[in-house]
Amino acid sequence: MIRTLAFAALLSTAAVASAQAPPPAPVLVDPKVAALRDAALDDSYAWDIVEGLTTEVGQRLAGTEAEARARDWSVKKLRGLGFANVRVETFDLPVWTRGYESAEILAPFPQKMVVAALGNSASTGPAGISGEIVAFDSVDALRAAPDSAVRGRIVFIDHRMMPTQDGSSYGQFGAPRRQGPTIASQKGAIGIVIRSIGTDRHRNPHTGVMNFADGARPIPAGALSIPDAEQMARILKRGRPVSMRLVLVSQNIGRRQSGNVIAEVPGRDPRLAPVLVACHLDSWDLGTGAVDDGAGCGIVAAAAKRIMDAGRPLRSIRIVWFGAEEVGLFGGLDYRARHAKEPHYAIAESDFGADRIWKVDSKLGLARRPEAEAIAAALAPLGIVRGSYEEADGSDIGPMLADGIPGIGLNQDGIRYFDLHHSPDDTLDKIDPAQLRQNVAAWTAMLAVVSGGIEEPKRRRRR
Amino acid sequence: MIRTLAFAALLSTAAVASAQAPPPAPVLVDPKVAALRDAALDDSYAWDIVEGLTTEVGQRLAGTEAEARARDWSVKKLRGLGFANVRVETFDLPVWTRGYESAEILAPFPQKMVVAALGNSASTGPAGISGEIVAFDSVDALRAAPDSAVRGRIVFIDHRMMPTQDGSSYGQFGAPRRQGPTIASQKGAIGIVIRSIGTDRHRNPHTGVMNFADGARPIPAGALSIPDAEQMARILKRGRPVSMRLVLVSQNIGRRQSGNVIAEVPGRDPRLAPVLVACHLDSWDLGTGAVDDGAGCGIVAAAAKRIMDAGRPLRSIRIVWFGAEEVGLFGGLDYRARHAKEPHYAIAESDFGADRIWKVDSKLGLARRPEAEAIAAALAPLGIVRGSYEEADGSDIGPMLADGIPGIGLNQDGIRYFDLHHSPDDTLDKIDPAQLRQNVAAWTAMLAVVSGGIEEPKRRRRR
Repeated sequence: MIRTLAFAALLSTAAVASAQAPPPAPVLVDPKVAALRDAALDDSYAWDIVEGLTTEVGQRLAGTEAEARARDWSVKKLRGLGFANVRVETFDLPVWTRGYESAEILAPFPQKMVVAALGNSASTGPAGISGEIVAFDSVDALRAAPDSAVRGRIVFIDHRMMPTQDGSSYGQFGAPRRQGPTIASQKGAIGIVIRSIGTDRHRNPHTGVMNFADGARPIPAGALSIPDAEQMARILKRGRPVSMRLVLVSQNIGRRQSGNVIAEVPGRDPRLAPVLVACHLDSWDLGTGAVDDGAGCGIVAAAAKRIMDAGRPLRSIRIVWFGAEEVGLFGGLDYRARHAKEPHYAIAESDFGADRIWKVDSKLGLARRPEAEAIAAALAPLGIVRGSYEEADGSDIGPMLADGIPGIGLNQDGIRYFDLHHSPDDTLDKIDPAQLRQNVAAWTAMLAVVSGGIEEPKRRRRR
Repeated sequence: MIRTLAFAALLSTAAVASAQAPPPAPVLVDPKVAALRDAALDDSYAWDIVEGLTTEVGQRLAGTEAEARARDWSVKKLRGLGFANVRVETFDLPVWTRGYESAEILAPFPQKMVVAALGNSASTGPAGISGEIVAFDSVDALRAAPDSAVRGRIVFIDHRMMPTQDGSSYGQFGAPRRQGPTIASQKGAIGIVIRSIGTDRHRNPHTGVMNFADGARPIPAGALSIPDAEQMARILKRGRPVSMRLVLVSQNIGRRQSGNVIAEVPGRDPRLAPVLVACHLDSWDLGTGAVDDGAGCGIVAAAAKRIMDAGRPLRSIRIVWFGAEEVGLFGGLDYRARHAKEPHYAIAESDFGADRIWKVDSKLGLARRPEAEAIAAALAPLGIVRGSYEEADGSDIGPMLADGIPGIGLNQDGIRYFDLHHSPDDTLDKIDPAQLRQNVAAWTAMLAVVSGGIEEPKRRRRR
């Protein structure tokens, strides 16, 4: 059983390192918080949400009718769970949609490959494009190449993304997707294919957004599945010219509507700033958006529901299921434009899958250090280590964190995340229900601390 | 290090069970056999073959120009390795080819699914077919249903294939693919989709051959990837009518040529019956045929090459890379029609992936029991247990084994095999080089025993 007292100080790296120092006094965990946390290990709300959303809606690409259906589904679900002030704040954005796609090696060894267009790729049209491959190990190598080596060719960028616990490799290894197409275009390439930004070994390509820099002519840009990229590397190694045909049919359908779905647990004192917990509702179109980010929506709503059912928190909890995150954080930026001048007590987002939380970060300021310590102490029995007190991050909430709004980061284990991310394989079966419940327990405990204490509402005396 | 003496009797279940009995005398392993076996643990020929075939040819569907390119590649490769009498024996067969395919749920929850046509599926034509789903848990449940429940609908057969060490579950769980389409057609269904016959959790459908029984009108027949089949089951569980659109465009292109590629290691005594070692060269069209069966071709040729390089075996070794196995054992049946009346000392086939061999079976007859024991003793140090002395199996060689030709079965671990089998995921990266080498070591040791002893050819005295 999980202990209700967490001797958090004993778990800290500092304490282990300086074994001579007397141990600091343990941070006591409020028994109510501990009880809520432990009960959440049996949660079924999060699974119910992610199972429902991925089954009854499936993929929900930003700005499409599928995302609109997801908003309708969400409003109904959140109202059904008993949340207050359930509403949608709409905004619009330019929308790119996938048509059909294929790739094949024409010479020297004719064979088909599995490809997916990157978001905002130019369309090849149904006839496709054909050209000789010019290969690079990295974006830097492409950047260093003379234009003459690239002009009129199809660029291939190889690389080997390694998984990391915290997902930090996405920054480094995402470069071929984010910058490759622009650089290839500027050097006169007719198209580009990259090794998928992913860590699996399946024939499932990983898509994702990219934007051509101003002045760079859009060109067709796709991602090969990792086995196909390795096949391409083996073919290139034979040293003969390699040519490829690429069909990436897509459409820019103009500006369409998206929106943020918002719901609340009203606090006992409506004058106090709310705690915001978030996820994103949209998904890439290849999978069903289970780990990215149906799980996050399930986790934050389940935690808020569990607090609401236990009584009334001092501060309001605001749930935001952001729209159009994948294609450029449109939902987060719209929320920020509307609400960032209102005070927020703390903001947090779950958008890194459904595997167990292993570390808690926070950025609440020096004055609120005891609160940060109370959160860490409440989470320690879940196997969660203490991270930074000076940083927290999140996708949609990133700009608001940069603005200085206090934040909390519950960090999930990222080792499996890029096996699935943005690929057809992001489906419900990839979620481990036990790890999902650990997430709910962590978010419940965090909310129980940050929302300022839960009390049963006072009953009116019957006459 | 691997011991060169295998106390095989000590490893047998019987010996363990009757601990009171005096241990039988150990079967001594010829030190030459042991040395060949152990050296093969550093083999690179098998990897070279499967890497080359899957990279330079890729998929090689029976009867297509890709399989013809594979034969050309194979003849060149086997000659390059120094084998004698390298030749192709051709035959022809009716050929079905895949066009393009897609599937989507139309109602109640519109979404795309990943599908692949089964071999010999009828074509839907480009317009596809649409209909209501009628679902069954098994072929037996479909068989038991009244025609009226099936007529005019699209049948869905769900099931849950579990992996087995020896692959025996393929017989039981293959029924939806083999029999489902015929039964659905006979009951008036307009099409059928089955849960892929596989054990993975990826968005990669598993194809495979099926044949409509005489009198059954061919209907479109596809396999959903396993995550899609589970999604279908969840959607059906909601209890509302489910309708689907299915596009499976394919073609019967008439009779085309295939062939068996044959090569030999001539024995010292050409009057003796040869030992036949086999694999199949063709593959399904979705992957690159790495584990099914490029690996098998690499394993048997590498083992024969190692024997050949060590000297001359007493008996000839005949390598056969069969054509058109996947679509109906055409290569095995052609070989049998031409050669089965010639004596064969023993036949064996590698066609179950590239994972480690865990068990050796043989069916050499009572008089050759000491030889069977010598094989088992030679393999024991590789972690291979003794199986049956009364049975052996193989795909192309199955009919010849049934005819009574002596056979040997080196059984691979099948736990991962149906994760990959007939799917886009059957690619080179799935082969573990260390386990592949263990296979080569086992086949080399087996051949060293069965080929009757290797001797350096006598050198002519120089004048």
